[in-house]
Amino acid sequence: MTEPRRAVCLLSGGLDSATCLAYARREGFECYALSFDYGQRHHIELSAAARVAESLGAAKHLVIPLDLRVFGNSALTSSEIEVPKARDEHEMGQGIPVTYVPARNTIFLSLALAWAEVLEASDIFLGVNAIDYSDYPDCRPEFIDAFTRMANLATKAGVEGRTKLSIHTPLILLSKAQIVALAQELGLDFSLTHSCYDPDSSGAACGQCDSCQLRLKGFAEAGIRDTVRYASW
Amino acid sequence: MTEPRRAVCLLSGGLDSATCLAYARREGFECYALSFDYGQRHHIELSAAARVAESLGAAKHLVIPLDLRVFGNSALTSSEIEVPKARDEHEMGQGIPVTYVPARNTIFLSLALAWAEVLEASDIFLGVNAIDYSDYPDCRPEFIDAFTRMANLATKAGVEGRTKLSIHTPLILLSKAQIVALAQELGLDFSLTHSCYDPDSSGAACGQCDSCQLRLKGFAEAGIRDTVRYASW
Repeated sequence: MTEPRRAVCLLSGGLDSATCLAYARREGFECYALSFDYGQRHHIELSAAARVAESLGAAKHLVIPLDLRVFGNSALTSSEIEVPKARDEHEMGQGIPVTYVPARNTIFLSLALAWAEVLEASDIFLGVNAIDYSDYPDCRPEFIDAFTRMANLATKAGVEGRTKLSIHTPLILLSKAQIVALAQELGLDFSLTHSCYDPDSSGAACGQCDSCQLRLKGFAEAGIRDTVRYASW
Repeated sequence: MTEPRRAVCLLSGGLDSATCLAYARREGFECYALSFDYGQRHHIELSAAARVAESLGAAKHLVIPLDLRVFGNSALTSSEIEVPKARDEHEMGQGIPVTYVPARNTIFLSLALAWAEVLEASDIFLGVNAIDYSDYPDCRPEFIDAFTRMANLATKAGVEGRTKLSIHTPLILLSKAQIVALAQELGLDFSLTHSCYDPDSSGAACGQCDSCQLRLKGFAEAGIRDTVRYASW
């Protein structure tokens, strides 16, 4: 009997990364889920990640403390910038949003790469998406390709030719509706995930931030009911 | 009067990174020194970094806590692996050493990239060296080139075409003797730096680990006296 192949799966606890982890599991990987405590406003996100990792049978879930607030400059990590609410699609499509965290995926993938090397894993899964007004430079296929090339020059395994690292981004070209449909097909329990940038004190999603709006639109278009808890509005 | 250009300078407190910072200062950059508290065996290294940053007039010195021991697997971060001592040059030249930290420069450069983006800096200085038996895959010019290419796809500045990020590695092809000579020319106070992998409790360098041996050989070849404190042996 062959050992299952190991993969490091970046997991925020949101719908996309949870779907990505479910996908990696279905592909037969033994999954090592990696989350970051990076000074988010809400630890709700990390609790969601822990629930999702357990529910999907991750071999391990590691949370690395990494406070990106030392750099400032993003609504997701600074309490001084207001999360935009109820923007229309046109506004969301304009340029890189204030919720952008500088070099976030580069940092997260670098740490995933370190763990992969220790685990002798040659696969990393990342639930990035280049569609649906995300506007993040580090969610585009050309960024992922360049990171992969760099990673294969950065590591022992790459240099010694033992393994060739692959970064899997199965959601990168899917619409939110397609992601919701894929998640449903994979049997993901939507109620465990958390997407809201600005939940209330009970943890209920606001339904109005960019992230909630994209999620709701995706469920509506897919004709699937979201079982996550929303504040009444 | 034009503003000085800002640069992020990775600073371990060792001879190479200190020389690199001194070089960036001479090039006229306003320097933002970046160190990591990554679970080193010795905080002596971070004290050296702080002394060097102050001595060389860095605009700011930021130390990011980032415990790479969560991954295990390196003598520099794990207390369970012994640091090799008194190896000859042939032994040092054999393959990637156990003191290798997985993906270290990738991780450090990723965080430097985030800070550079916040500072609107388009220059990062890194004191890596591909000569002198370093054997680290992430110290080679082809790795630096691949990281630069990736970084320019990862960031707002790169995407919006505002600035083109450069990673400067002025020491990459110098011998240790040439680095010592350059440091002397730049007026670096050698006694502030710290290179030893295994200092004694008073902070004195052991003189026998790979790092001490390379340093001592460099000084000997350059015909310059090292003013750092060594344990008597």
